[in-house]
Amino acid sequence: MKLATLRTGKGTTTAALAVGTESYVPLPYSNLGELLAYPGWRSVVHAQAAAAEQDAKLINASDVELAPLLPTAGKVICCGLNYGDHIQEMGRELPEYPTLFAKFADTLTGPADAIEVQGSGEVDWEAELAVVVGSALYRADEEQARQAIAGYTVANDVSMRDWQKRTLQWFQGKAFDATTPVGPVMVTPDEIEDHFEVRGYVNGELVQAGNTGTLVFGPAKLLSYISQFTQLRAGDLVLTGTPGGVGMGMKPPRFLQDGDVLITEIAGIGRLENRIHINPTGGATTQPLVIATSTNNATATKE
Amino acid sequence: MKLATLRTGKGTTTAALAVGTESYVPLPYSNLGELLAYPGWRSVVHAQAAAAEQDAKLINASDVELAPLLPTAGKVICCGLNYGDHIQEMGRELPEYPTLFAKFADTLTGPADAIEVQGSGEVDWEAELAVVVGSALYRADEEQARQAIAGYTVANDVSMRDWQKRTLQWFQGKAFDATTPVGPVMVTPDEIEDHFEVRGYVNGELVQAGNTGTLVFGPAKLLSYISQFTQLRAGDLVLTGTPGGVGMGMKPPRFLQDGDVLITEIAGIGRLENRIHINPTGGATTQPLVIATSTNNATATKE
Repeated sequence: MKLATLRTGKGTTTAALAVGTESYVPLPYSNLGELLAYPGWRSVVHAQAAAAEQDAKLINASDVELAPLLPTAGKVICCGLNYGDHIQEMGRELPEYPTLFAKFADTLTGPADAIEVQGSGEVDWEAELAVVVGSALYRADEEQARQAIAGYTVANDVSMRDWQKRTLQWFQGKAFDATTPVGPVMVTPDEIEDHFEVRGYVNGELVQAGNTGTLVFGPAKLLSYISQFTQLRAGDLVLTGTPGGVGMGMKPPRFLQDGDVLITEIAGIGRLENRIHINPTGGATTQPLVIATSTNNATATKE
Repeated sequence: MKLATLRTGKGTTTAALAVGTESYVPLPYSNLGELLAYPGWRSVVHAQAAAAEQDAKLINASDVELAPLLPTAGKVICCGLNYGDHIQEMGRELPEYPTLFAKFADTLTGPADAIEVQGSGEVDWEAELAVVVGSALYRADEEQARQAIAGYTVANDVSMRDWQKRTLQWFQGKAFDATTPVGPVMVTPDEIEDHFEVRGYVNGELVQAGNTGTLVFGPAKLLSYISQFTQLRAGDLVLTGTPGGVGMGMKPPRFLQDGDVLITEIAGIGRLENRIHINPTGGATTQPLVIATSTNNATATKE
């Protein structure tokens, strides 16, 4: 099945089941993460889908916007340097351990949202497969981790390279609010292949392509590794790294320009399409903006 | 005023006002973060304190355990390399930008809790001043950031150096569940000096000391800087870095041993006293533990 989070109003969302590409069945949870936190989520989805079909309570895809898939994810953990073929073509050795860093849910944005960046002149792309955690996991082996995968989605770990390179720790270049698109849907493992073709395009030009079959640390291995030191819960999100072809690695380096369209695509899951708005000099201690005060409503500031 | 989060039962907590060192007035919020999220929190505290005094509804300090001060903090952001005198004595230049990394609330633990570490043989200490955010902050200047500080507390960013050094990113060595003690109370800025003496002791021996007056990026500057890229909210926590004297820097390096007692102290705020339990070979894909499934109850696994 394919599950999404839809915007239903100013700062409000609902979990939904995608029916074909044309419509959704709304589900009685405020987003996908809330749905997954309920252990019997699969039967809830089936029951609601059956009821909706009888009552024809479908929502047309053209009538709604998609929210970031997991707007209140408790943990968003990213892996860097994970595509084996790209690492080897660069002449490096395969890493023994995954390079991990953390994000907060505020960094996420919707699959078709404009991405507004203030204060950076080096905005780069990182197309990625992301794994959605479906049940609690702590000190789990790889097989237990595999069982705990709820599904897969698409993400772009858009990175402000100038901020990322200011210090040894990447966090500040990776944590700008509402700059990591995630979605459009989560696809459950039974519906898709084990390996995914991940592609990134800038204004229609293919800039990145990689197959997750070449990941040094695949989804289950990553979840198992992370769970050795911190518990993962339903609705947490793990980004698996990006293949070769980022702008920073080009000669000369190439970065996103104001108005560019970034497309991130995984066959069998879907595509993100985000227009980029950049104000390289803005954001530096000017006037404060009106912002959300709730810790549980990451989408509220975006409308 | 001095505010705390008390354990009231299995996985349940309450915010409380400390009265002297002997007792607490319980407040009608489940923890300090929930209290601070209510804009009129100061008047709530005053009203409850007055009512409690009339009805003598005080809780004896000896009857309760302290929880991690902010068990559900949305953001925990840490700064490294921030004590100017220590950086200069090492012959390095002062940094232009703060080195930042993120933690999740699961990493926090109570001010008197035992710290259990599995799978690391290089457990190190980092005594720190921590700043509690009191109101929402986004793209704020330094003065706005200063106004948004709810108060100060004590933390120890206990670090698993073997895991921290596995890759370029420190996260995995800093994010072991329930290893960063925070508390015992948050002291509001009106009650204390601007600069703090931070001290760390292992089994009674002073190993770290530094004055926050020598911070390259002081509390308001740090909050302002972080707010340029991500919004901060009431109840978020910012750790300001550690002075010289960590075990990794000693010759030969010295790490915590099973049974050691780690004390972290800031005069005017309070002290953390945590016994360390270490199983260097444990935790590697053995049996899964029973864990919490709620994303909003970081304390539930600890009892």
